[in-house]
Amino acid sequence: MADANVTELEELLAAPPVPTRRPTVPALEEQLYKVHPVLDHGFVRVVDYMGDDAAIVQAARVSYGKGTKSARNDRGLIRYLMRHRHTTPFEMCELKLHVKLPIFVARQWIRHRTANVNEYSARYSILDREFYLPHPDQLAVQSSTNRQGRGEVLDATTSARVLDLLRRDATQAYDTYSELINDDGEGNAVDAEAPQVARELARMNLSLNYYTQWYWKIDLHNLLHFLSLRADAHAQYEIRVYADIIGELTKAWVPHAYEAFDDYRVGGAHFSRAELDVLRALVKGGDPDELLPKTGLSLRERKAFREVLALGKPKRS
Amino acid sequence: MADANVTELEELLAAPPVPTRRPTVPALEEQLYKVHPVLDHGFVRVVDYMGDDAAIVQAARVSYGKGTKSARNDRGLIRYLMRHRHTTPFEMCELKLHVKLPIFVARQWIRHRTANVNEYSARYSILDREFYLPHPDQLAVQSSTNRQGRGEVLDATTSARVLDLLRRDATQAYDTYSELINDDGEGNAVDAEAPQVARELARMNLSLNYYTQWYWKIDLHNLLHFLSLRADAHAQYEIRVYADIIGELTKAWVPHAYEAFDDYRVGGAHFSRAELDVLRALVKGGDPDELLPKTGLSLRERKAFREVLALGKPKRS
Amino acid sequence: MADANVTELEELLAAPPVPTRRPTVPALEEQLYKVHPVLDHGFVRVVDYMGDDAAIVQAARVSYGKGTKSARNDRGLIRYLMRHRHTTPFEMCELKLHVKLPIFVARQWIRHRTANVNEYSARYSILDREFYLPHPDQLAVQSSTNRQGRGEVLDATTSARVLDLLRRDATQAYDTYSELINDDGEGNAVDAEAPQVARELARMNLSLNYYTQWYWKIDLHNLLHFLSLRADAHAQYEIRVYADIIGELTKAWVPHAYEAFDDYRVGGAHFSRAELDVLRALVKGGDPDELLPKTGLSLRERKAFREVLALGKPKRS
Amino acid sequence: MADANVTELEELLAAPPVPTRRPTVPALEEQLYKVHPVLDHGFVRVVDYMGDDAAIVQAARVSYGKGTKSARNDRGLIRYLMRHRHTTPFEMCELKLHVKLPIFVARQWIRHRTANVNEYSARYSILDREFYLPHPDQLAVQSSTNRQGRGEVLDATTSARVLDLLRRDATQAYDTYSELINDDGEGNAVDAEAPQVARELARMNLSLNYYTQWYWKIDLHNLLHFLSLRADAHAQYEIRVYADIIGELTKAWVPHAYEAFDDYRVGGAHFSRAELDVLRALVKGGDPDELLPKTGLSLRERKAFREVLALGKPKRS
Repeated sequence: MADANVTELEELLAAPPVPTRRPTVPALEEQLYKVHPVLDHGFVRVVDYMGDDAAIVQAARVSYGKGTKSARNDRGLIRYLMRHRHTTPFEMCELKLHVKLPIFVARQWIRHRTANVNEYSARYSILDREFYLPHPDQLAVQSSTNRQGRGEVLDATTSARVLDLLRRDATQAYDTYSELINDDGEGNAVDAEAPQVARELARMNLSLNYYTQWYWKIDLHNLLHFLSLRADAHAQYEIRVYADIIGELTKAWVPHAYEAFDDYRVGGAHFSRAELDVLRALVKGGDPDELLPKTGLSLRERKAFREVLALGKPKRS
Repeated sequence: MADANVTELEELLAAPPVPTRRPTVPALEEQLYKVHPVLDHGFVRVVDYMGDDAAIVQAARVSYGKGTKSARNDRGLIRYLMRHRHTTPFEMCELKLHVKLPIFVARQWIRHRTANVNEYSARYSILDREFYLPHPDQLAVQSSTNRQGRGEVLDATTSARVLDLLRRDATQAYDTYSELINDDGEGNAVDAEAPQVARELARMNLSLNYYTQWYWKIDLHNLLHFLSLRADAHAQYEIRVYADIIGELTKAWVPHAYEAFDDYRVGGAHFSRAELDVLRALVKGGDPDELLPKTGLSLRERKAFREVLALGKPKRS
Repeated sequence: MADANVTELEELLAAPPVPTRRPTVPALEEQLYKVHPVLDHGFVRVVDYMGDDAAIVQAARVSYGKGTKSARNDRGLIRYLMRHRHTTPFEMCELKLHVKLPIFVARQWIRHRTANVNEYSARYSILDREFYLPHPDQLAVQSSTNRQGRGEVLDATTSARVLDLLRRDATQAYDTYSELINDDGEGNAVDAEAPQVARELARMNLSLNYYTQWYWKIDLHNLLHFLSLRADAHAQYEIRVYADIIGELTKAWVPHAYEAFDDYRVGGAHFSRAELDVLRALVKGGDPDELLPKTGLSLRERKAFREVLALGKPKRS
Repeated sequence: MADANVTELEELLAAPPVPTRRPTVPALEEQLYKVHPVLDHGFVRVVDYMGDDAAIVQAARVSYGKGTKSARNDRGLIRYLMRHRHTTPFEMCELKLHVKLPIFVARQWIRHRTANVNEYSARYSILDREFYLPHPDQLAVQSSTNRQGRGEVLDATTSARVLDLLRRDATQAYDTYSELINDDGEGNAVDAEAPQVARELARMNLSLNYYTQWYWKIDLHNLLHFLSLRADAHAQYEIRVYADIIGELTKAWVPHAYEAFDDYRVGGAHFSRAELDVLRALVKGGDPDELLPKTGLSLRERKAFREVLALGKPKRS
């Protein structure tokens, strides 16, 4: 699939560096074009980038004036911007990735509308026989407490059975796809008697675990928003593993911005008006077991509140 | 699938009208909530709308001043805006649709990033056993001239064979999906011994011809752009039939805007600098067979040029 | 300025209601087309709307499935969506406003890129002699603590002097503008000897406190984001008064969504990773005067932290 | 104004190049950070860029498959993409500019909502005493034929008078602004007796010809759209001169894409359905003087049609 591109990227990987006067990040230069494997056949690789931590600061200083220079160092200014949700300076950096991912992951990912995308088209081209099979550790039952998540992992016998079914169906789907396409890879029919069904039709037989790939370009502000949703514990495992590696690459690229994001977004928490009222009483010595039931907070909200503050479970009276 | 919503819409359909002072279009009120079937299991229905032809004019008059009022009637002003690509007044109208469509169509459709979308989630809910099978008239071979299109329709025997394969694989995919989900529709296991595999995992076994559905809301400017790409002869048949019915609904909603769109976009043509040079020579009596080969136009460009001007095929000398 | 439009809107205001089967909000119907004065010459009025609280719920139920129906009432579901930042259902509602506002306010406002805008064009039309003069209560010195804000109000003598200067300069700017335009309002020269300088040139002489107007259309998700930034205490007074009245109109339109927004966004607070660490120690009985200096929090962060938790000032040891 | 930034950029200009393996364009490297003067005090300079012609091709090949490689060279493929409005590969390149421009130009420019912007903020910082005065060659009367344009240039006496008025008002506006701000540039009062009025208030006295500046970042597809509107003969001169220099920089950066844009967009023309009907008759030898009056085309449309085809004026019978 898209071998031409892969070859092209290998060439880029081997090519000697050239001089530039643009902002350049040595730590990301090292990662450029490198394949970072994800899931069983997927990958992420950085194809290009624009800007660095200093570019965020440069844009912020135009907006907020010369005072920002004397007042704070770069790291401090970036943390200030993150804390106060001054988002436009983060839009001044841009990252371009080449990603290979299962179609059902691509369907979630594409909902982030602020990125630029060029996806492999199965109207024009033939997809490879590559489909995703979960690792047994990831084969789990429907969660009983979280309507969109996974619960306990399947036992070995059941997970083997499930993988057999998934493998059988995906294989048969591709066999049919191949028969319909009837193309030897050079455009010639494999079976000279049979027609070459239109690619735009044949592809409908493939299942959602088949791999696709795309170029994906996004600015840093929207990238961090993507990471905050997709590297989150509530995100589906199969997209989270992509977000995790992209998070690592982002950290190499803009370490100050990533640190601020990690401290203020990932590691932070938001409290509602009602929760703030309880908090104020708690820090004055109030008893959560007494205070919480009197608020309008739902059971689920109270549970989350106790967890984030490490309050433990309510005592039975 | 989403029976709750269907019931809700039936109720809306039956409910008596209420008074409003908002711009209202009787012709679209008649279509409100009505199911317009598309393909074998899909549909489009209008769920809400904002604005009308007069709303476009109203916005244009704020931008272009009072002179616009005396100078032109509404239809003339809308045609002027369309001709000169003054697009912002068309953004003042908004349409909301409920659409049921195969996943591979949804994947093309979602590339229009300027719309608002709420799609049925197979992480939370169970998809119905409904998949798309092309009508035999639409089962065609890969086009030999157009890399992304269809050529001749398959003969009856072959198309029956193809449909059997597609049906067999889709059916098996759903059987496996059902077995994994193991849910009687009320949340209880069908097979009490077996696990209920997480929905977010089980869905990966379904093929791209399964139906999904969504609410889709878009402003008129971006809707017309969508129609210009998707109601076009180069669009895949399975999305074009949706665009066609949406075009009809748009015509009922904003007849002046739709007429202008049809005259200036759909029925119009764009010529490049080199083509304009040829055109100027042609209208002075030049011979296309002599002029065209001397330009830098590719064979494909010359062919398209001759077609749009009804010049016929070049004469052999 | 734009008298044609005003007349048109008066007609709409007087016109009898017509029947519709679209979602309709009686409380907002009452506000439709009504002028809500803002500052000395500005206004806001609702020109159209699409959707209501039920439309948010309807979209959410498509996304999150039938379970959402039985599980929660509308208000509860909307609060759940707001709490978990499920933003797309809020995009299903749309509001269209006609706003008259000083140019320097328009320059801040336009930075919200997700709205549709048609602004009065001074290339085509002549601006009225209407400029903003602050109320003496709003004339204040540069804040010494907040680099972007206002400090103490000016004394009566000084504020009278400042208003005189502002009035004098704005008046002279318009006199020059009028002389250059040299148009009696019907297109004829006032001074037959003098030229009518191009409007697109003459307008550059006007100052930033002159009024402009526009139609502004935005979906509810982005409207709430606008309100969270512009109805905030850190926003400049002159845009905040617009945000405040738009907030009131939003409350009339989608009361459940507005209540959830008010509880979770406006009345809520966000804590960073380091602040959460302090919080956990505080609710276990820790002493803020001891704990806070040991964190990496800046003085400004500590001050804000104490304020939101009503901790009072640190005690001197 | 923003001297800190200027100094910073001078340093960047002087800094030695560093090695990168990213796509690099020597012709644009030469332009990097260089000031290109525009109008009397404005400028444009390239601050960063991402991608090149090859990056467009690379993205297109992922979308349209390996066949695109063998079939066409880079230039041909880019022309194909431009002709068929396959816009997403052009979104894979990004340009970042630092621009200084009059506020009334900034107000037009900002309507392009698809860019990232960080503007100098007069809430935080003090604007310089720099305002735009048109060159006498650009001082013209309101066009009598084009409601948004300029007609004949003013005579020398009148234009001297107009410039005097503009200069006088702008100077007075700044004098008042300075008096209100009452800041010696180091934060100290010039007049110790007088207050330092809040910057966010004082700025409202400045006129629309004062200069502002911003960082502006945009992808190539949207940049070409900006150029097609703003480098056009119908655009106001004061924004067109910016678009012209940006066009030159774009040509240095992505020569194939710019050439295709120039041939297909700038030098091309669009014909409506009715105009195509006339065209088909004309190339068959029809007489425009006979054909044109029989169409539904307006006088203005017929005039434009004759011009683009070099048909000359209609003959009087």
